[in-house]
Amino acid sequence: MSRVRWERGARGARPGRSSGWTCREEGALGGYAVSRATRLRAGRVHFLPSAHSRSFSGVPGLRWRTAMCLSISRRGSTWWRRCDGGAAGGSGPRSGTQPTRIPQNPGQTYISRGSNQRDEGPASAGRMASSVAETKELENHSDCCVKLCNPNVATMKEDVLYHFNLSTATHDFPAMFGDVKFVCVGGSPSRMKAFIRYVASELGLDRPGMDYPNICAGTDRYAMFKVGPVLSVSHGMGIPSIAIMLHELIKLLYHARCSGVTVIRIGTSGGIGLEPGSVVITRQAVDACFKPEFEQVVLGKRVIRSTDLDEQLVQELTQCSADLSEFTTVVGNTMCTLDFYEGQGRLDGALCFYTEKDKQEYLKAAYAAGIRNIEMESSVFAAMCSACGLRAAVVCVTLLDRLKGDQISSPHEVLAEYQQRPQRLVGHFIKKCLSAPDVP
Amino acid sequence: MSRVRWERGARGARPGRSSGWTCREEGALGGYAVSRATRLRAGRVHFLPSAHSRSFSGVPGLRWRTAMCLSISRRGSTWWRRCDGGAAGGSGPRSGTQPTRIPQNPGQTYISRGSNQRDEGPASAGRMASSVAETKELENHSDCCVKLCNPNVATMKEDVLYHFNLSTATHDFPAMFGDVKFVCVGGSPSRMKAFIRYVASELGLDRPGMDYPNICAGTDRYAMFKVGPVLSVSHGMGIPSIAIMLHELIKLLYHARCSGVTVIRIGTSGGIGLEPGSVVITRQAVDACFKPEFEQVVLGKRVIRSTDLDEQLVQELTQCSADLSEFTTVVGNTMCTLDFYEGQGRLDGALCFYTEKDKQEYLKAAYAAGIRNIEMESSVFAAMCSACGLRAAVVCVTLLDRLKGDQISSPHEVLAEYQQRPQRLVGHFIKKCLSAPDVP
Repeated sequence: MSRVRWERGARGARPGRSSGWTCREEGALGGYAVSRATRLRAGRVHFLPSAHSRSFSGVPGLRWRTAMCLSISRRGSTWWRRCDGGAAGGSGPRSGTQPTRIPQNPGQTYISRGSNQRDEGPASAGRMASSVAETKELENHSDCCVKLCNPNVATMKEDVLYHFNLSTATHDFPAMFGDVKFVCVGGSPSRMKAFIRYVASELGLDRPGMDYPNICAGTDRYAMFKVGPVLSVSHGMGIPSIAIMLHELIKLLYHARCSGVTVIRIGTSGGIGLEPGSVVITRQAVDACFKPEFEQVVLGKRVIRSTDLDEQLVQELTQCSADLSEFTTVVGNTMCTLDFYEGQGRLDGALCFYTEKDKQEYLKAAYAAGIRNIEMESSVFAAMCSACGLRAAVVCVTLLDRLKGDQISSPHEVLAEYQQRPQRLVGHFIKKCLSAPDVP
Repeated sequence: MSRVRWERGARGARPGRSSGWTCREEGALGGYAVSRATRLRAGRVHFLPSAHSRSFSGVPGLRWRTAMCLSISRRGSTWWRRCDGGAAGGSGPRSGTQPTRIPQNPGQTYISRGSNQRDEGPASAGRMASSVAETKELENHSDCCVKLCNPNVATMKEDVLYHFNLSTATHDFPAMFGDVKFVCVGGSPSRMKAFIRYVASELGLDRPGMDYPNICAGTDRYAMFKVGPVLSVSHGMGIPSIAIMLHELIKLLYHARCSGVTVIRIGTSGGIGLEPGSVVITRQAVDACFKPEFEQVVLGKRVIRSTDLDEQLVQELTQCSADLSEFTTVVGNTMCTLDFYEGQGRLDGALCFYTEKDKQEYLKAAYAAGIRNIEMESSVFAAMCSACGLRAAVVCVTLLDRLKGDQISSPHEVLAEYQQRPQRLVGHFIKKCLSAPDVP
């Protein structure tokens, strides 16, 4: 018997929504495999091969197929799906109290993520060898695993990604980016160049004298570097800046027909109640009122979006930190603000109309809400990646403990070492994923 | 008789607030001078010498002194101030219907701007030759005309401007920046370097082979360049990014004891109903709901600030554009959004849940509200400069007409020329100000 459990139902994920879901399937050997899939059409699910997840699997006999979803139910914070195969047992949507249990039959189990109405069309299965029957359906853009929530883009003759200085009319996106599996983003261009050098070294892809040219040459809005399946992109500071980058990055991945992409933000932050230099893996991105929401004004109306991140990815990254055992890493909520000074309760900005006591009360309330660090990009990052079905995580180092001060005054070399920590953690994660024997 | 009229009372300015006020004084020759002043202490006003304003004056006999403010009154949208001098006529706060008329006596008229309670201490008079009697009072930080709305900074032993990679402990701010009178800010580092080269050439301050090193070397968050009294600083994209820069810039000017500083944002934008390449001088910055407000969350609470800009400066810049007569320039409202794609009603982002019709309705409503262009920084720029008493303006070129499309697809050389237009306009403005014979 294999048990299919929906990992991503914990918070906010619902059938029919576009947030990515993962499934843990317990196999005969006692191990498990984690993957994601997308609904090929109503009722039918199709796997998204997830190399980074599979590298953690221990079920050699697992195959990745399509299956019919018969019903979805919920137990506590976990979603369960009953698939076709005749012998599938467990709960339907109305009984909803027992987990689905399905015979271990590779052709009949599995896994999907919800999709909203705009995503209703065919979606990529990731061109897995076991999905040959589906190949023809996967040969156009709409099959791409990176999905846009915008039907207009598919109809455009040319798409100018203005802030990247790239265009579909002048650049061959599939040739340039089709093999991308990991995208790491961070504020500083120089840090993202340092990261690509580090990853190249870690993956054995560097050569003496090798340079990593900025793919976005001709603009200084963003910088982009690539080595093997890893893309490294700077995003500047703040929600608007990273949002512009993400719109164009997601379109880039879409045009390049990428599949199975994981996006990780590696950044800096202010900690709350943590030793400086601690790394925080974000469980949930929250706003300045501690809500797990991202608010945006669209055509003059306020729109609220959830800020879910991939729970399984958090676990995998936590394990990677344990593997390294080089620095303190915690999992906690991350507060995302629109301002670095007043917006984060600092007392040292050009404007400040509150007291130290007010600040301490605010930060302690944040700590009580599970918040362990503060930065300026995670909420829109989580919201956009989730909406477009990208598996995403936020890994930030803390440069100071905000309960003890506001100024970042550690020596340059100390801060530089701190900033390398998320890079080392994520570098190890990528290496681990790619070195797994079952990676296609 | 000279008439003192408060230009800055038009919207939101009130006695006791920190927004900058200007005064138009009609002189015997029929010309007028515009200046600004700050309250030296309760009831006493002191001039802030305003080189850029004085260059437009036509009153050769005017002097700049201190005077006692006896009362303030309002007529319509205009504030009037009754000063000491015995012969001063006009209205007090309760009569309030007639303009103040004061004999043309250079020692008795004049001008102030409001200050909030935090600004109540002595403030700089700009070290005018005519203010010798006040010199001793002006020799400490609190005399600086650039005023912080934060009493904490004056008590700090060291102030680390982290994102500039500058610190008061390691850099001599008065020596490095004390002569700054104009700060021009824009998104792109390379554009701001190009601007400093252009200004140096315009002002005759360039030398063959001269370089303009980045003052913020050691960080790539922002770039800063200086020539003579002009500082050029990049601010990245979006409200959070420019807000961090402004907090640190205003503290920099404060620590450097600068006075009489004008700050101008020169940027790019999307136009509404304008030919691409048109330049918009912002009358008022408005949010995505067309309100002249900047909303911020401080310690979990929403705070609304006004987005006033200097009306007189708008007129002066408009005149400069007329002097140049090189491109179309209009004065209009500027919408400031938190997002480039959905936030501005674009149809070509990674997410889009509305139609062309919805977009057109929104943009046409914006046009009807006097909005002529859309960008992503003006509201917080206006709010922060206004709060800290900095005379400020926004001058942006439009790269496309949003009523006709969303993609910025003009050839690179065309866009490059467009982007030079705000630089040429503001360069001419600075040159005109500095070449005026009465500039100290």
